[in-house]
Amino acid sequence: MLHVLFLFSLILTSTHVLAQDFCVANLKGVQTPSGYSCKMESKVTIKDFVFTGLGVEGNTTNIIKAAVTPAFVGQFPGLNGLGISAARLDLAPGGVVPMHTHPAATELLYVEHGHITAGFISSSANTVFLQTLKKGDIMVFPQGLFHFQINFGKRPSLAIVNFNSPNPGLQILDFALFANDLPSDLVEKTTFLDDAQVKKLKGVLGGSG
Amino acid sequence: MLHVLFLFSLILTSTHVLAQDFCVANLKGVQTPSGYSCKMESKVTIKDFVFTGLGVEGNTTNIIKAAVTPAFVGQFPGLNGLGISAARLDLAPGGVVPMHTHPAATELLYVEHGHITAGFISSSANTVFLQTLKKGDIMVFPQGLFHFQINFGKRPSLAIVNFNSPNPGLQILDFALFANDLPSDLVEKTTFLDDAQVKKLKGVLGGSG
Amino acid sequence: MLHVLFLFSLILTSTHVLAQDFCVANLKGVQTPSGYSCKMESKVTIKDFVFTGLGVEGNTTNIIKAAVTPAFVGQFPGLNGLGISAARLDLAPGGVVPMHTHPAATELLYVEHGHITAGFISSSANTVFLQTLKKGDIMVFPQGLFHFQINFGKRPSLAIVNFNSPNPGLQILDFALFANDLPSDLVEKTTFLDDAQVKKLKGVLGGSG
Amino acid sequence: MLHVLFLFSLILTSTHVLAQDFCVANLKGVQTPSGYSCKMESKVTIKDFVFTGLGVEGNTTNIIKAAVTPAFVGQFPGLNGLGISAARLDLAPGGVVPMHTHPAATELLYVEHGHITAGFISSSANTVFLQTLKKGDIMVFPQGLFHFQINFGKRPSLAIVNFNSPNPGLQILDFALFANDLPSDLVEKTTFLDDAQVKKLKGVLGGSG
Amino acid sequence: MLHVLFLFSLILTSTHVLAQDFCVANLKGVQTPSGYSCKMESKVTIKDFVFTGLGVEGNTTNIIKAAVTPAFVGQFPGLNGLGISAARLDLAPGGVVPMHTHPAATELLYVEHGHITAGFISSSANTVFLQTLKKGDIMVFPQGLFHFQINFGKRPSLAIVNFNSPNPGLQILDFALFANDLPSDLVEKTTFLDDAQVKKLKGVLGGSG
Amino acid sequence: MLHVLFLFSLILTSTHVLAQDFCVANLKGVQTPSGYSCKMESKVTIKDFVFTGLGVEGNTTNIIKAAVTPAFVGQFPGLNGLGISAARLDLAPGGVVPMHTHPAATELLYVEHGHITAGFISSSANTVFLQTLKKGDIMVFPQGLFHFQINFGKRPSLAIVNFNSPNPGLQILDFALFANDLPSDLVEKTTFLDDAQVKKLKGVLGGSG
Repeated sequence: MLHVLFLFSLILTSTHVLAQDFCVANLKGVQTPSGYSCKMESKVTIKDFVFTGLGVEGNTTNIIKAAVTPAFVGQFPGLNGLGISAARLDLAPGGVVPMHTHPAATELLYVEHGHITAGFISSSANTVFLQTLKKGDIMVFPQGLFHFQINFGKRPSLAIVNFNSPNPGLQILDFALFANDLPSDLVEKTTFLDDAQVKKLKGVLGGSG
Repeated sequence: MLHVLFLFSLILTSTHVLAQDFCVANLKGVQTPSGYSCKMESKVTIKDFVFTGLGVEGNTTNIIKAAVTPAFVGQFPGLNGLGISAARLDLAPGGVVPMHTHPAATELLYVEHGHITAGFISSSANTVFLQTLKKGDIMVFPQGLFHFQINFGKRPSLAIVNFNSPNPGLQILDFALFANDLPSDLVEKTTFLDDAQVKKLKGVLGGSG
Repeated sequence: MLHVLFLFSLILTSTHVLAQDFCVANLKGVQTPSGYSCKMESKVTIKDFVFTGLGVEGNTTNIIKAAVTPAFVGQFPGLNGLGISAARLDLAPGGVVPMHTHPAATELLYVEHGHITAGFISSSANTVFLQTLKKGDIMVFPQGLFHFQINFGKRPSLAIVNFNSPNPGLQILDFALFANDLPSDLVEKTTFLDDAQVKKLKGVLGGSG
Repeated sequence: MLHVLFLFSLILTSTHVLAQDFCVANLKGVQTPSGYSCKMESKVTIKDFVFTGLGVEGNTTNIIKAAVTPAFVGQFPGLNGLGISAARLDLAPGGVVPMHTHPAATELLYVEHGHITAGFISSSANTVFLQTLKKGDIMVFPQGLFHFQINFGKRPSLAIVNFNSPNPGLQILDFALFANDLPSDLVEKTTFLDDAQVKKLKGVLGGSG
Repeated sequence: MLHVLFLFSLILTSTHVLAQDFCVANLKGVQTPSGYSCKMESKVTIKDFVFTGLGVEGNTTNIIKAAVTPAFVGQFPGLNGLGISAARLDLAPGGVVPMHTHPAATELLYVEHGHITAGFISSSANTVFLQTLKKGDIMVFPQGLFHFQINFGKRPSLAIVNFNSPNPGLQILDFALFANDLPSDLVEKTTFLDDAQVKKLKGVLGGSG
Repeated sequence: MLHVLFLFSLILTSTHVLAQDFCVANLKGVQTPSGYSCKMESKVTIKDFVFTGLGVEGNTTNIIKAAVTPAFVGQFPGLNGLGISAARLDLAPGGVVPMHTHPAATELLYVEHGHITAGFISSSANTVFLQTLKKGDIMVFPQGLFHFQINFGKRPSLAIVNFNSPNPGLQILDFALFANDLPSDLVEKTTFLDDAQVKKLKGVLGGSG
């Protein structure tokens, strides 16, 4: 029976340099369009495939009464190249995840407890798809479309969201418009918002220009 | 300002036939390598994007003391073409999700409550990646590799799993080997299992041959 | 030499049913996640691969002083499955293409004449990438990110834009927020805009709620 | 143990409509950019996954002393959606597979017997990569590049080629230029070939114009 | 309101290392199958996303009376990983872009001024798709197929072409056959061209062998 | 005519740094999710595109009477990024390639001589697709599914298999279960195999635990 071992050992030896069952990110290595370069397989351990950060409740003592805790490839290097990631979403009563998009991923949201009112808007006809979700419901937000989540309930709610990309991106409307140096007149011309409105939100969110 | 409306209405009219923000599956339509044909957009509603089946606890009063409730495109047509799906995994104390693979997807598991001992095996070096996960932990199982989950705890555990495919497939080792008409001698020759073992499990799982 | 003909005719005959050099859309056929079903190859002509609609100047006598003329798969069926499309962008002096995203495509803009001030905003750091482009310049807008174009010049400008998708989608911020029945309080909660601002723009753009 | 059966039967029943382990082509069904629509799974048999046509020697009694026998999705419907195909290449002594490209696939050639001189030309620097292959050798021809095979030996040679597409396409230079109605002056202007040369080959290959 | 800032700053900080809204090519870095490694995001500026080289008329005072000015990833590093590129095509009267293919991309051509006669040839049936295009017309050339452009008009013409790849490749028939050291007898055997024809063109184009 | 040369030389010079007709693996370079970094094009030769290892008969004097000789990217660097690979399969009489999967590729098997009984099992209904193949037959094994090959004949058989990935992976059931330190009780719980059976095979295959 040693022959069996010999045979397969041979195969495995000859291929050992190229194992790509996975490609755990070397976060200090180069980035490429397909993701980070891989950590050496001999140094990969179970720790690379487990992430514990989603077990910690996010701090919702802020104005939006919400917290998003990502488990993207930057936090969880084992996801590199594997086409999936997750995040934890804590919403205190009245909490809001503001209008945003993920430029490169579809989102699937699962309500662990509480109630969450969620919606997305189609690009073709600006149709609003809106529903109040209860514990155990899942809702899908197709790639790249505007969406949001709100807790109108009286108790905290918790959702776990997944994305079909290890690095889905997150573009929050208010931050894109009001938290940078995009000149106010450009914001106004391209959004039809009033000058006072723009300047008010720039003030709040730290924008200039 | 009617001009604005006119302008964009024009655009939207000319493109309205081809909206592919999403392609909700017409489960009675044709299937193709990229998924099902799309339901007419005018008939799409919020119900197509929400699935409530994962809120129902699976029945674990069976031998494996476990239940898997899928939310794949067949159950949740809104996922068609969107590259993601989910399932609910209930594990009673002693419950086991047997050794299996998903031929076409990576899995990301989130522990909602309880403890789950999970593992996968690399193909390159047969390395075992094994960990007992607690509430809030997530673990990734790279595409196509053998993996399993067990509840060694004294209380029920619940996990929500996501896949980067609307139709990840599920190939359970025991069912592939013992629950069909694959002749026993072929099973034995290709797995090195003893004849008595094979026949015993064929008996249990309903296989013939 | 007939033998040569015979040989290759044989090959071509045996494969003639499956030519997929292209898959011209049958716009009345089924849609799938990969696009429309194909028109029969025997009915495909050069007309399927040429589109003349971009040669016609768009009507910019509207409030935004701009017009977008798409050549997506709905207008130009030959693009189906080929991963590319185009549009014509006419901007009168003062014209604006408002803040928008393409959920499923990168855009490459070419200025044919005039000057266009264009910008996009990164999702990672909300960085503004802004430039006034002159005749002959090209600028790339990465997939899914907010962007806009404005003509601050005194003469009309014309741009031709291309997308790496036959159906890139177009989600205009103002239409997504104000031209549908998304309730005003949800708009306000998710954008931090003031109630008066929201209602003003809903009035202009025809939204309700 | 019936419970086990019950559990998994439930899963299988609920998903049975959407199995996409494979999508055997319904050659009379619609075509899409991702391939043919699928044959009903209940009608799929082992015959769909086996093709015997490559076991038959091609007829090389023609001018090029060569024969190509394809096993593309049109001949072998089980390949639909699976990203692979094959062909048999018989080359009598002096046989030639003329200069050609596969628009949508890389080719990997295996020499079963005889000697084959094969080459491809890079697009970046027009570098010729040329080698005479012997029994057992394999050579890769990167996607879309010009390549050819010749048997300079004294005995017949046989190669099996594989492609990473179920429908790789085959564009033979001489047929593209001389076997259709592309006007001679266009051929000449775009290839710099002499008029006499073009007309000679049009005569041989059945072209007009 | 500082809390809002705090919340999102936290998110952005934790993810700042992995922003892949874009991956501007580091042309001196490593190349991979997915493209070049990325320039550090902190060094990315608007200059990386704008290319001015297409604004310069190509020099058509050559035998083919044509000039192609590429804006591929090598010239325009911002395109890396974004799946799109462009080129400028100047055709003096009588100018010709000779028969060629792009091994890895579909092309979409827009006529900015003048008239261009363009054609491509299908691989399945060698069908010629030919049209004289006028200002404003667009034509698509499916991936990998032979095509060409000619200016039969009396005035210069200009086209802007786009590709669905940042690096589409360009294989010019005459250069592949006659501008390298591919031995003349191999050219002749694989193209059926006469020896005199081959040697004449090798002489013109600098080929040897 | 020098002008022609000048023109195209210009193009080629400007693009010469980015040729990606191919990306021959630098096996000592970084690995990424899309494969290895590329060898410098100036050092690429025909040797990179030819592999001779499949011409050598594998040593089948072992217990399984079979040998698999891979030509994956680790052995044949020219395949990097090209989406294809191959292997040689020698089966002495009674030889068996045990039950296994390829996590990331479809397999297409060609019988060069002898008879091979091959089968795969669907995941959706555990259907067995089984056939004895003769010389010249090809059979496809869809991605990720269990399959095996056996020589029940009296003479050696030889197959050449191809994969639609340069690095398909190979997960052999017995090695995954019995040739590592996966604890016996976990094997038993997840496979329903008896303790004696597990320990027997662990003994044979070198497993511990």
